[in-house]
Amino acid sequence: MKIIGIDPGYAIVGYGVVEYRANRFAVLDYGAITTEAGVPFNRRLEIIFDALTALLEQHRPDAMSVEKVFYNNNAKTVIDVSQARGVLMLAAQKCRVPVFEYTPLQVKQSVVGYGRAEKKQIQEMTKRILNLDSVPKPDDTADALAMAICHAHTGASQLGGGRTLRIKEGI
Amino acid sequence: MKIIGIDPGYAIVGYGVVEYRANRFAVLDYGAITTEAGVPFNRRLEIIFDALTALLEQHRPDAMSVEKVFYNNNAKTVIDVSQARGVLMLAAQKCRVPVFEYTPLQVKQSVVGYGRAEKKQIQEMTKRILNLDSVPKPDDTADALAMAICHAHTGASQLGGGRTLRIKEGI
Repeated sequence: MKIIGIDPGYAIVGYGVVEYRANRFAVLDYGAITTEAGVPFNRRLEIIFDALTALLEQHRPDAMSVEKVFYNNNAKTVIDVSQARGVLMLAAQKCRVPVFEYTPLQVKQSVVGYGRAEKKQIQEMTKRILNLDSVPKPDDTADALAMAICHAHTGASQLGGGRTLRIKEGI
Repeated sequence: MKIIGIDPGYAIVGYGVVEYRANRFAVLDYGAITTEAGVPFNRRLEIIFDALTALLEQHRPDAMSVEKVFYNNNAKTVIDVSQARGVLMLAAQKCRVPVFEYTPLQVKQSVVGYGRAEKKQIQEMTKRILNLDSVPKPDDTADALAMAICHAHTGASQLGGGRTLRIKEGI
């Protein structure tokens, strides 16, 4: 199963593509789509949409795993991240890639086995699980790879009849 | 100047297309893009994107006037409306239509001349300004036509050196 993990945003969109087979991961690609602050917002949305579309066409993943957006104290950031997330979802829909959404809690439980894990712990475990030499930078990229691991573990446990996490499919 | 006004949403996207010339309006088209509650969210985003793209290609407006999203008490609604708004902005960007954003206060001041106007007053003035027989339904459509009027009045007053409203261009 090939999975692309996405950490949504409008300045930085982290992505990580992994192949998961027989409980083993192979890392195929990771990085970040970035847009400059001075660029008009709608153009930034277009850059993000086009870049993700190109990645989906290149890798043809079986699933896209995306973090859910939650309200925090900065309404403007939530609104702008959500607008960017909308075009990420649209890119997946246009490429007919099923989307699965997970909360930060689900990611932590799935990667570290502990819902209150610190960011550094998740990054360290992501590095170990994927057998990488170092934690990928920026953080958004490491977070995206953790999203991909989360979907691999969740999907596998579901197939195996183990614990069930609530997922929402987007196609 | 041909203007499309948009009232963003994910269940109902109101739209209204007007031609504004020499202080006169001609209404070219209005209605609503609707998506059903049972349809997966990403498919709803695709329906909205495709429908607006078709409208923009049909009418080729000089400007798109869209309401700003603000945080209210329902975080989930704000996040989902923002995701839908992202794909509306992307459609405009892909069709190279400049986007102008206005607050509800700016719309009220521009259509009724009074920032605390009631929704019914705005709809009644929209009907009168556009010389319509009745207030268009649903409300989202009337609101979209008010957005178009707002941009016509604001753009005209700006060209005439009158009061300046802060606008943000999206191309």
